Amino acid sequence: MIKLNQTHDVSLQSWVESANSLTTDFPIQNLPYAIFKLRDSNQAFRAGVAIGDFIVDMPAAHKAGLFDHKLNAALELLSHDVLNDFMQLGQEIWSAIRLALSGALKQGSKHQSALEACLVLQSDAQYKVPAQIGDYTDFYTSINHATNVGKLFRPDNPLLPNYQWIPIGYHGRSSSIVVSGESFHRPYGQLKAPDQDCPTLAPCKRLDYELEVGIYIGQGNALGQPIPIEESEQHVFGLCLFNDWSARDIQGWEYQPLGPFLSKSFASTVSPWIVTMEALAPYRQAWARPSNHPQPLPYLDSAQHTDSGALDMKLEVLLKTPAMDTAERVGLSNFNQAYWTIAQMVTHHSVNGCNLKAGDFFGSGTQSGTTKDSMGALLEVTEGGKHPITLSNGETRTFLENGDTVILRGWCHIDGMARIGFGECSGTILPPVNRG
Amino acid sequence: MIKLNQTHDVSLQSWVESANSLTTDFPIQNLPYAIFKLRDSNQAFRAGVAIGDFIVDMPAAHKAGLFDHKLNAALELLSHDVLNDFMQLGQEIWSAIRLALSGALKQGSKHQSALEACLVLQSDAQYKVPAQIGDYTDFYTSINHATNVGKLFRPDNPLLPNYQWIPIGYHGRSSSIVVSGESFHRPYGQLKAPDQDCPTLAPCKRLDYELEVGIYIGQGNALGQPIPIEESEQHVFGLCLFNDWSARDIQGWEYQPLGPFLSKSFASTVSPWIVTMEALAPYRQAWARPSNHPQPLPYLDSAQHTDSGALDMKLEVLLKTPAMDTAERVGLSNFNQAYWTIAQMVTHHSVNGCNLKAGDFFGSGTQSGTTKDSMGALLEVTEGGKHPITLSNGETRTFLENGDTVILRGWCHIDGMARIGFGECSGTILPPVNRG
Repeated sequence: MIKLNQTHDVSLQSWVESANSLTTDFPIQNLPYAIFKLRDSNQAFRAGVAIGDFIVDMPAAHKAGLFDHKLNAALELLSHDVLNDFMQLGQEIWSAIRLALSGALKQGSKHQSALEACLVLQSDAQYKVPAQIGDYTDFYTSINHATNVGKLFRPDNPLLPNYQWIPIGYHGRSSSIVVSGESFHRPYGQLKAPDQDCPTLAPCKRLDYELEVGIYIGQGNALGQPIPIEESEQHVFGLCLFNDWSARDIQGWEYQPLGPFLSKSFASTVSPWIVTMEALAPYRQAWARPSNHPQPLPYLDSAQHTDSGALDMKLEVLLKTPAMDTAERVGLSNFNQAYWTIAQMVTHHSVNGCNLKAGDFFGSGTQSGTTKDSMGALLEVTEGGKHPITLSNGETRTFLENGDTVILRGWCHIDGMARIGFGECSGTILPPVNRG
Repeated sequence: MIKLNQTHDVSLQSWVESANSLTTDFPIQNLPYAIFKLRDSNQAFRAGVAIGDFIVDMPAAHKAGLFDHKLNAALELLSHDVLNDFMQLGQEIWSAIRLALSGALKQGSKHQSALEACLVLQSDAQYKVPAQIGDYTDFYTSINHATNVGKLFRPDNPLLPNYQWIPIGYHGRSSSIVVSGESFHRPYGQLKAPDQDCPTLAPCKRLDYELEVGIYIGQGNALGQPIPIEESEQHVFGLCLFNDWSARDIQGWEYQPLGPFLSKSFASTVSPWIVTMEALAPYRQAWARPSNHPQPLPYLDSAQHTDSGALDMKLEVLLKTPAMDTAERVGLSNFNQAYWTIAQMVTHHSVNGCNLKAGDFFGSGTQSGTTKDSMGALLEVTEGGKHPITLSNGETRTFLENGDTVILRGWCHIDGMARIGFGECSGTILPPVNRG
């Protein structure tokens, strides 16, 4: 049901040599968006598109006259320092620009010399969060994660009765979402061990990562007008990587009865690149419920969605302690294991009439498998801190320590098809701020 | 500890006659802000200040040259269609403009004739949500509300152990916050009665209001830099009324384990007027914990805060059914009963380093007393829908019905002092959207 077109052609090669590498995240079939400027410059932030090791400076490419004048109004929006207005335009325009850019970047394009002048090395770039995120919602779509975590609290009844009916989600904090590469201080919070009478204010002792997919909304809906599931993916601009850092001890004490709050709002990290839904089309897969599970209510179900609602996207989390030279993998999972799809998240979110806006952001929830090496949070891997992991250099971790860097990576790849990568999403834990 | 100045002088009278009425919400001692335009006009929305039955068109007053030129940069911001940039300026500037405006509006002012040309009748005005709300957080500061609701679910243990230690809060949805006067459709959602095997998608049957105080943040803080309690109120611009409409049946089925989501995000209503913290100074009260309750942790406590952390603000909720000519009171409470103060909300919210931004919005949580006539939600008054209320015309209600209008009012008043009112916060329930 997902249509492929010439921009997906695996034989397509670019005159940007690094885009033709088999290991690049950014071949000519990808073309993800970010907001960037030259590092340490006083340039304005603007939109760029990744190609191999480079960024196409989109306002510069527009000025160079590479695009059909019918796209002028859309291209003007790419000089903004956030993508919101461009996200609002919709699939037809995004697709037309993708097609034009693909043509200009392919080997033999007459635009090569003009476009070469618009390339910036990614290693020279500084990024920012690519949208003004009006509202951020975190979902909980991995049944393995929900079960792994539920077991810690309710061994006999890990999964709550609503889980198989509702794409569970909750509102998160937008203001503290930062872009990959930004460090943050270990948060303070109220902590209370079960054997203590009173809580104390102290730096979090159980700091964790969460391996998530981030989803940016494109065109929104009016308040009171739900989005049917058949139309829901038309409202999605693209995907990124997302680390929903979590203070497990703060969370345990604060979260009843209204949900996680300060245990999450100290920092959340997005990757700079947004991979469009069109680029991901070759990796869509059939989505199905195990036959012994309840089938979704009709508003969350459609033939089109069942045919290609899932996405074969590998998700990796790596840890680099201060004693390490290179990061090492501590988890590898796949977004195609999600119990709820992107389409279901969008439709459920709006079923009550809630209005989504361009630039709104969803987290998928931690994406975990069932084995230790496929879990997306230390809480799961260490079973609530009971069983530390041992790293290859002999160090151990139950939760994150100061100086630790966590890197998320994501990619779609099947032999014989173009590799569609997400770049990386990285963050480092600084010591808590001294409070005298 | 709260300083009063000449703008609070109860003997101050305005040349705007309606501002001198003993029953007006908007005497010269109040001077709250809204964003408005002439109804059904193609005017731009801009800032206004209420005086009696009128609005001072602030950009017009600025153009008329009524203010010291040192305030020019600040006054320019009042021509924006949201107050965010003005909110970011801080107490000193807000206070200087208040003082100038108070002088220009008082009897005998030489500015009377110039300012008369800048007045717009409130009855001719249309309002909008006065800030671009980046993040909205709903607190749960009424221990009576928490206890009343907790009793319905846990009769033997209504209050959770964290309640007396943490100003419990959770993130809410910003996009669906609307201004007083806007109607909204009864939301659909997943409903599951305890005796049903499976949920169904249907219009909410248990629609409720919540009587809350809204709090707008002024100057924000940087990520990673907590706000000490001594400084917290300097970060607050002002207060309004807030109805956090709630679908109790959707909430009951969805809220475990991550908190309320679609049960709240279909609509929330703010009043148009923001009363500044300076205007409320005469009504600040000592704040204290009952001596048999745990005292707050040091980061949530200070002498200044204990001296005047509370606010004597009456809160009223009125219901008007389609069969009624005038609304009737269904609840009257007081914000001075809140278990946690505004200062504690601000400080707790930032204790983990979370950054607050100008225009961010807090709900206080439903403000309830202990008696039926002082409760701020039908869930409490009817004890979970078990005991309908009877209205003066003989109608009964367990929850809200289509066509019902709910009006919130709030005011501060003590004999011999100027009455500081909040206007009203009104919304009407439309039937659910037909889904064919």
